[in-house]
Amino acid sequence: MHVVIIAGGSGSRLWPISQKAHPKPFLRLDGATSLLQQTYQRGQFACGEDGMESVTTVTHRELFFRTEDEYQALAPQQPLHYLLEPCGRNTAPAICAAALELKQRYGEDAMLLVLPADHRISDESAFAEAVKHAAVAAADDQLVTFGITPTRAETGFGYIEVREAFHPAESPIQPALGFTEKPDPTTAEHYLASGRHFWNSGMFCFTAATLLAELAQHAPALLEHTQAALGAARYSEGEKHSVAQLDPEHFATLANDSIDCALMEHSSKLAVVPCDIGWSDIGSWQAMADLTPADAQGNRVQGDVEMEDTQDCYIHSHHALTATLGVQDLVIVDTPGALLVAHRDRSQDVKQLAERLASHDSQYQWHQGKVHRPWGTYTVLEEGHRFKIKRIEVKPGASLSLQMHHHRSEHWVVVSGTARVTNEDSDFLLRTNESTYIPVGYRHRLENPGLMPLVVIEVQSGDYLGEDDIHRFDDGTGSGLPRFT
Amino acid sequence: MHVVIIAGGSGSRLWPISQKAHPKPFLRLDGATSLLQQTYQRGQFACGEDGMESVTTVTHRELFFRTEDEYQALAPQQPLHYLLEPCGRNTAPAICAAALELKQRYGEDAMLLVLPADHRISDESAFAEAVKHAAVAAADDQLVTFGITPTRAETGFGYIEVREAFHPAESPIQPALGFTEKPDPTTAEHYLASGRHFWNSGMFCFTAATLLAELAQHAPALLEHTQAALGAARYSEGEKHSVAQLDPEHFATLANDSIDCALMEHSSKLAVVPCDIGWSDIGSWQAMADLTPADAQGNRVQGDVEMEDTQDCYIHSHHALTATLGVQDLVIVDTPGALLVAHRDRSQDVKQLAERLASHDSQYQWHQGKVHRPWGTYTVLEEGHRFKIKRIEVKPGASLSLQMHHHRSEHWVVVSGTARVTNEDSDFLLRTNESTYIPVGYRHRLENPGLMPLVVIEVQSGDYLGEDDIHRFDDGTGSGLPRFT
Repeated sequence: MHVVIIAGGSGSRLWPISQKAHPKPFLRLDGATSLLQQTYQRGQFACGEDGMESVTTVTHRELFFRTEDEYQALAPQQPLHYLLEPCGRNTAPAICAAALELKQRYGEDAMLLVLPADHRISDESAFAEAVKHAAVAAADDQLVTFGITPTRAETGFGYIEVREAFHPAESPIQPALGFTEKPDPTTAEHYLASGRHFWNSGMFCFTAATLLAELAQHAPALLEHTQAALGAARYSEGEKHSVAQLDPEHFATLANDSIDCALMEHSSKLAVVPCDIGWSDIGSWQAMADLTPADAQGNRVQGDVEMEDTQDCYIHSHHALTATLGVQDLVIVDTPGALLVAHRDRSQDVKQLAERLASHDSQYQWHQGKVHRPWGTYTVLEEGHRFKIKRIEVKPGASLSLQMHHHRSEHWVVVSGTARVTNEDSDFLLRTNESTYIPVGYRHRLENPGLMPLVVIEVQSGDYLGEDDIHRFDDGTGSGLPRFT
Repeated sequence: MHVVIIAGGSGSRLWPISQKAHPKPFLRLDGATSLLQQTYQRGQFACGEDGMESVTTVTHRELFFRTEDEYQALAPQQPLHYLLEPCGRNTAPAICAAALELKQRYGEDAMLLVLPADHRISDESAFAEAVKHAAVAAADDQLVTFGITPTRAETGFGYIEVREAFHPAESPIQPALGFTEKPDPTTAEHYLASGRHFWNSGMFCFTAATLLAELAQHAPALLEHTQAALGAARYSEGEKHSVAQLDPEHFATLANDSIDCALMEHSSKLAVVPCDIGWSDIGSWQAMADLTPADAQGNRVQGDVEMEDTQDCYIHSHHALTATLGVQDLVIVDTPGALLVAHRDRSQDVKQLAERLASHDSQYQWHQGKVHRPWGTYTVLEEGHRFKIKRIEVKPGASLSLQMHHHRSEHWVVVSGTARVTNEDSDFLLRTNESTYIPVGYRHRLENPGLMPLVVIEVQSGDYLGEDDIHRFDDGTGSGLPRFT
């Protein structure tokens, strides 16, 4: 089984904690592991010992280093393949590209288990059981979906319909009549009562051959453009790993289509495995609130919050103290970069709001918070008139590129670990609590020769402090291209 | 006329923009001048050319440097006297101390114009006219109050009552029957209709002799304890200026009393000058909102705000982007340190909330944001594991004390201006874009020998970064005591 993790979405329905630069898969709801890591572990668990042959991740190219860091923390044994998108195009191109890539690497019988990277499943054993049934049908040329048994008349999901109500224990898999769009409330009540409708979880199981044949029949343009984008991709191959950067020009011609609309609503090879697995897509602040227990006033609170006469609010305060007074039915989400105050019934509309905001300043979205690079991370702590302050963390053994700036001097203070510094013609060690400065025009390099992480506070000083004032003397390390060292 | 500016209040009703460390008098509502500076200018304007003989400011000792900076920006010609309180004790001790101090300096006939430092008056000419009338009655042994003609049935203010309704144009000053507490809504309606009730603005005019005689009669304990606190005060005398730090032990024995309760409600020497001067005490978020024009949906907005389906909200967003969705009747105030979300009808209750919060962590309240020192200011930009980053601004010609730290090294980057640095045995200039570092245990001093402000980014590095790790080798400059150089 080849696990395909779809991680490219922007998660704008959880704005502002989920943003382009920090999308939903990276959220650590339990503190310890991210939704992305949990997805990886779920795939491994569901496939069983040695059953997961490879993991292919489709994501935005800006998120590559960070995604790689998340997986490496799990010490993965499987080959990792990456398909990097230059821009978001919904699930149809992502899943199509993964099937093409896996067919090429492992043959057309390669069986794919497609998992969105930002869902939560509380009963992993039940899910593993469902995957076993799915694999049987997938081998029999079916597009297998995982249908969640509805627990309420939800209007926010699409549904999968079967011919007759049945008990999952009797029949673990059924042919599906088809996919339906999100229903109105009356229809949703009818669906809930019928026993013939399941929530579409967005997880799938099929062989590359089945998917590509169905796409050729129902979505030939999608298939053709995705083939072109993959054919012109820039590949980096490691010992086991690979990275394909999909061609931006061809990729841009693709329509923004979900796999549901592009294929599932038209195919006649659909099967569904009904599941009762404690699933949530955490698809809104309302869904997020449901994960936090309520107090006696119905408030669900995270972080530093002081409430007076406050009822039925969800407050997520991860920036500063939040105080409320005489309010009710609000969702309040405070982060260092943005604050949301919404009525709790409007949580489905946050997506549109976030997308409108993102369109104002799309560049900004990528460059706030911690930025991941192959040598480690940097975080802009403060910018002011004539100065910019960064915290730079360099991994043990890693090194930034040899570089030079025309308009700024740089000042490095080692607050943890030991640095090796190249500064024009000198080369020396800088220990904890020591500092040095790099005048304008000097060639310099920062390395971590030690076994512990190196933490440096960098103060940039000068008239122009843009990231583009950089001249690199060697290639690779700082260029933003993938490396496998 | 001697102007007395009462600046010690915490302004907790405008929490979180007004806090202990940044109270209301320092707010710059118009961008340019603070409420404190406007109060100074108002006194000068009302007293006329050369009419303001001195300015005495009663404030908390932690706010001294900052208050002095505000006045110096106005290039004042008058003697400035300061009475510094070790803790807040409401207006009665403050006004009593000012009267005692001015009697001692200028004799008992010294006439005082008492102005709270955090009010707004839009018609300064009308106020100056009122002061002229007040001075006449004050010379005639009256305690003169400034009564604001009510424009609504306000329940948040105390009232001053006169015997008969009259037109201010006919009679610019009247004997007052007495002060009344904040009324209930029905009584407030009655007051509004009567024409015999005025809002108590908290501004007064009287001679030192009149006030002290009345206090001796109606509040002898207050007078006695205040005399003791002033008698044991630490004085610093400059050429024209003076600073008295009131004795903490004696001051602590004083009751927390307003001048209204302590004296005005009991005195029979009350007069009132009715005023129509565009007055606001900006005493709540509701009052603050009234100063901002509303849009078509009734929203009043300051800062970076995106609204959808939002009605009748006041949004003050001076930290990050604020987005609202489907909400109404809210006051939302977002600052770097705290967020308030309150129902607009609850703006009077913010005070209690703020006071409860302040009691949690009273030390913290003083040391956030920009800290004023005689040599300039510092601002903590960031604190993290093993490092703290400050922006230090040193005034031209000023110098920090010669000092040494046992547990931290310091790294100075000059981002603007030129510094003279003493570092153990060396003494050198550090120019813009240059940096140096001070190892643990080295004696060091930072000076600005130039004519332009010096801006330094300081990175402290070490295991212990508390402000108390400091050994000073000379006295004065950095000790927190007033100096007049």
